[in-house]
Amino acid sequence: MAHSLFITFEGGEAAGKSTQVNLLEKSLSNMGHKVIKTREPGGAPGAEALRNFLLFGPQDLSLRAEIMAHFSARCDHIDKTIQPALKEGKIVLCDRYYDSTSAYQGYGRAQGDPEILAFIEALKVQVRLMPNLTFYLHVPRTVAVARIKRRAHLTDRYESYDESYHQRVEEAFQSMALQEPKRFRTIDATGSIENIHSEILSEVSNLLHSGNSV
Amino acid sequence: MAHSLFITFEGGEAAGKSTQVNLLEKSLSNMGHKVIKTREPGGAPGAEALRNFLLFGPQDLSLRAEIMAHFSARCDHIDKTIQPALKEGKIVLCDRYYDSTSAYQGYGRAQGDPEILAFIEALKVQVRLMPNLTFYLHVPRTVAVARIKRRAHLTDRYESYDESYHQRVEEAFQSMALQEPKRFRTIDATGSIENIHSEILSEVSNLLHSGNSV
Repeated sequence: MAHSLFITFEGGEAAGKSTQVNLLEKSLSNMGHKVIKTREPGGAPGAEALRNFLLFGPQDLSLRAEIMAHFSARCDHIDKTIQPALKEGKIVLCDRYYDSTSAYQGYGRAQGDPEILAFIEALKVQVRLMPNLTFYLHVPRTVAVARIKRRAHLTDRYESYDESYHQRVEEAFQSMALQEPKRFRTIDATGSIENIHSEILSEVSNLLHSGNSV
Repeated sequence: MAHSLFITFEGGEAAGKSTQVNLLEKSLSNMGHKVIKTREPGGAPGAEALRNFLLFGPQDLSLRAEIMAHFSARCDHIDKTIQPALKEGKIVLCDRYYDSTSAYQGYGRAQGDPEILAFIEALKVQVRLMPNLTFYLHVPRTVAVARIKRRAHLTDRYESYDESYHQRVEEAFQSMALQEPKRFRTIDATGSIENIHSEILSEVSNLLHSGNSV
């Protein structure tokens, strides 16, 4: 049985997304599913080069240009990695997808400017691939900040923005999850890694048994 | 008197676009107009970095990603260079603009695939800035090839494509010019540099006197 499914993980910094992607990949593989894990921005060689440009490049782009560049990387990722995997009957687990563009650029940088939000929506329509299921891993920003302080890594462009920016991003994810309850599952990501994993695995199992795949 | 005008120059390789942009800039400046000349891809620091990525980068992007990246550079160029200049009442002369994306990606690479053409049209709508006037400098491909052989320069990604690709690009410009006769002026660019310049200057003068500016 080949179930192709496209599952995305969203949330602010240090919500534990990549940990949960790794655990879910193992569990689904052990159950006999063909699974790939991937991430955005990136997930294909050209898209990874754009990721580097966007996160660590010396040049600031205008906001519209930055959004368009994220969608460029996304198109490369879809065309070269996600769609081929779905065609082979695989389950695709993706760390961030277009909801991150809405949250970080639309609500974070543009503070909900209706023109920018409409611009993002128009580009979402053009990429033509919606996730079957999106997990929003929610941790209060204070918890996230404490986690970030404990890990040593290179700070990227977005992490370096101020606190009110990150608050807007978190609120954006919350309201998007409320607006699309069929696709989104909000997960309290302050609990234990194992409990969160069980909750996620149970949701994915439900979807697999409902036959609601791509 | 401040006339803001957005004038683009299109055509295949070695049609003489940059020569004509330079001559037109001089003539209009001498007439007392405020003029800037710019080019695509590029025309702003972030867009120029993307130009380098697109023309000389090691990574091939999927076709949709490549188109989106050109539009990303275009947004940066519009937001940071073109729109501010137009707001200051300047005449903007631009070497290539979105018609080049239609010609090179839509007709050259995608060979007129209707889905890709529709994708490009949707992005053109999103950038929301149409030129007041577009000069299509036409030279037969045989003439262009002879000119290219005479000049020494670094060959970019697009120039390295095969002959049938460049034929499709040239035909695409011809048919686009026929489809939008109000905006396009097709110029026989095999003639002398001075005659071509006079023809272009006369068209721009007509537009300036008709008061049909932005």
